[in-house]
Amino acid sequence: MSTRLFSFSGGDTGPWRITNMETMIGEQLPAANRLAIAPTSSSPADPQASWILRGITSNERYVDREERSQIVSKQLDLGRPESTCGALISIRKNEAWWALTQEERMNIFKEQSHHTRIGLQYFPELPRRLHHCRDLSENEPFDFLTWFEFEPAQEAAFNRLLAELRAIPEWKYVEREVEIRLVREVA
Amino acid sequence: MSTRLFSFSGGDTGPWRITNMETMIGEQLPAANRLAIAPTSSSPADPQASWILRGITSNERYVDREERSQIVSKQLDLGRPESTCGALISIRKNEAWWALTQEERMNIFKEQSHHTRIGLQYFPELPRRLHHCRDLSENEPFDFLTWFEFEPAQEAAFNRLLAELRAIPEWKYVEREVEIRLVREVA
Repeated sequence: MSTRLFSFSGGDTGPWRITNMETMIGEQLPAANRLAIAPTSSSPADPQASWILRGITSNERYVDREERSQIVSKQLDLGRPESTCGALISIRKNEAWWALTQEERMNIFKEQSHHTRIGLQYFPELPRRLHHCRDLSENEPFDFLTWFEFEPAQEAAFNRLLAELRAIPEWKYVEREVEIRLVREVA
Repeated sequence: MSTRLFSFSGGDTGPWRITNMETMIGEQLPAANRLAIAPTSSSPADPQASWILRGITSNERYVDREERSQIVSKQLDLGRPESTCGALISIRKNEAWWALTQEERMNIFKEQSHHTRIGLQYFPELPRRLHHCRDLSENEPFDFLTWFEFEPAQEAAFNRLLAELRAIPEWKYVEREVEIRLVREVA
């Protein structure tokens, strides 16, 4: 079984150097210099970490069959040597979002917001992995962690992707968002 | 914040005495005499337990607005003194289910299987609480734990509910199911 559960540890260790950390809305995360990403079963939590976020990859919730086949056929792997830029977008949605039914959420995600269609415009140059946190425990600080890796030449495209997503109706339900930009430095 | 994460410990302690344990499909659970149900934050795991299942209540995935208002308006509380019968239905669905898109799953759940409509026929006499396990960690033995409590007079209705659900197309995706029946005995 492939690994589904990952931890993102902010502190003074790890191959990714944090170049910028910006709180878009809600509570800040404590400062950190570097980020380590690990499957949580493989390594104990770093006791020196400033913070540790955890998330699990899961079944897709809002993607239809045609969109999925487009995503799967195009998807680039994470971990390519040329992808030296990273970004971690941590999101929590508000109570109003979670009080909606699945159909209402899907309608906002898809019909009103075209979330997947926007994302597909930037595939495969901006491979990403979505992690769910909400059902790991009762007290996770975020609902979703999305990890991106890309080549430096793609940074402008990544900025456009973020700007587009932040303008959609779905984003009105975001009550906490922290954006972290990173570069990979081999130790 | 109300408790969302619960543990179900099978062993020799707890107010619920196990009267019957039946494996409908898939691997058995080890034998146990009694069941204790606890919010997991409140008590350490019982080291004597034969098994411990965990699950978290979550947002609804397949219920529409009208169905939800029916459920909420009718729902009886768990923990009523007259509800001396309990049942724990533990389910795991197969890979084919989880490889479907959310819309495909919703279609099977709703249009083909009328899962919620069947359940509503038995509300409020059979109050239940659904717990999700799949995204708690990578290695949970089940995907869903559903806990029911009812008066002894409702046992026949409960048996009909189970029979109806096991006949729907959705149940073809169940690869493991263990049914546990219990009675509450105040110590």
